[in-house]
Amino acid sequence: MLLGDLYSSTACLTWEGTTFFGREAIANKLINLPFKNIKHIITGQDFQPTVDSCILIMVFGQLQIDDHPPMAFHQVFMLKNQNDNWACTNDVFRLGIHNIPV
Amino acid sequence: MLLGDLYSSTACLTWEGTTFFGREAIANKLINLPFKNIKHIITGQDFQPTVDSCILIMVFGQLQIDDHPPMAFHQVFMLKNQNDNWACTNDVFRLGIHNIPV
Repeated sequence: MLLGDLYSSTACLTWEGTTFFGREAIANKLINLPFKNIKHIITGQDFQPTVDSCILIMVFGQLQIDDHPPMAFHQVFMLKNQNDNWACTNDVFRLGIHNIPV
Repeated sequence: MLLGDLYSSTACLTWEGTTFFGREAIANKLINLPFKNIKHIITGQDFQPTVDSCILIMVFGQLQIDDHPPMAFHQVFMLKNQNDNWACTNDVFRLGIHNIPV
C-alpha cells in the first residue's frame, strides 16, 4: 500500500500550521519530510464517534527524529468509511513545542 | 446562554480520557470542575473543513488554574451546523503533561 492510499482523495493535512489538500499533495509532503528515521512513543489515544459516522482520534506522545532529543507531539485524525474502506479524511499534526510553559 | 447550549444534544466530550455523552452530562462535568479561576493562553489554532461540512479545530496553548503554575494543553473541537446554529458535536481535551519527554 502506498502512503497516500491511507488518505481519502479529498483529505486534508495540516502539518505544523501548513495545510495540504488531496491525496497527492499529502503524500508528497510526507515522503519529503527531512529525516531518515523516526520513532513514535504513543502515550495515549482518545477516540470518539461523530454524528456522520466517522471516528475522531487524538494521539499524543513523543517522537524522536534521527539522533535528536525526543519531542512531544499531538495529532488528530478523522477516519471515514468510504466504499467499504476506512480512509483518513483529516489529519492535524503539531509538535508539543508550541504549548510548553516557559 | 447556558454552557451546555454550546454543545449538540448528542455531543461527546472526552476529558482527560473519560468520555461523557450528551449535553446534560457534558455540562454537568464542566460546571463541576474543581477550580475557581482558569486563564487560557492560546498559542495556536488549526482549522480544517470536513467532508460532512463540519469544522475541525485543534487549539493548543497553556492554561493556569487558580494559583498553580501554567500547564500546556491541547483540545480538539468539531462544529456542525444544525438548524441554522453551529454546535459543538465533539470535544477532546488533554493536558500536555502526558506527552512531555522525561
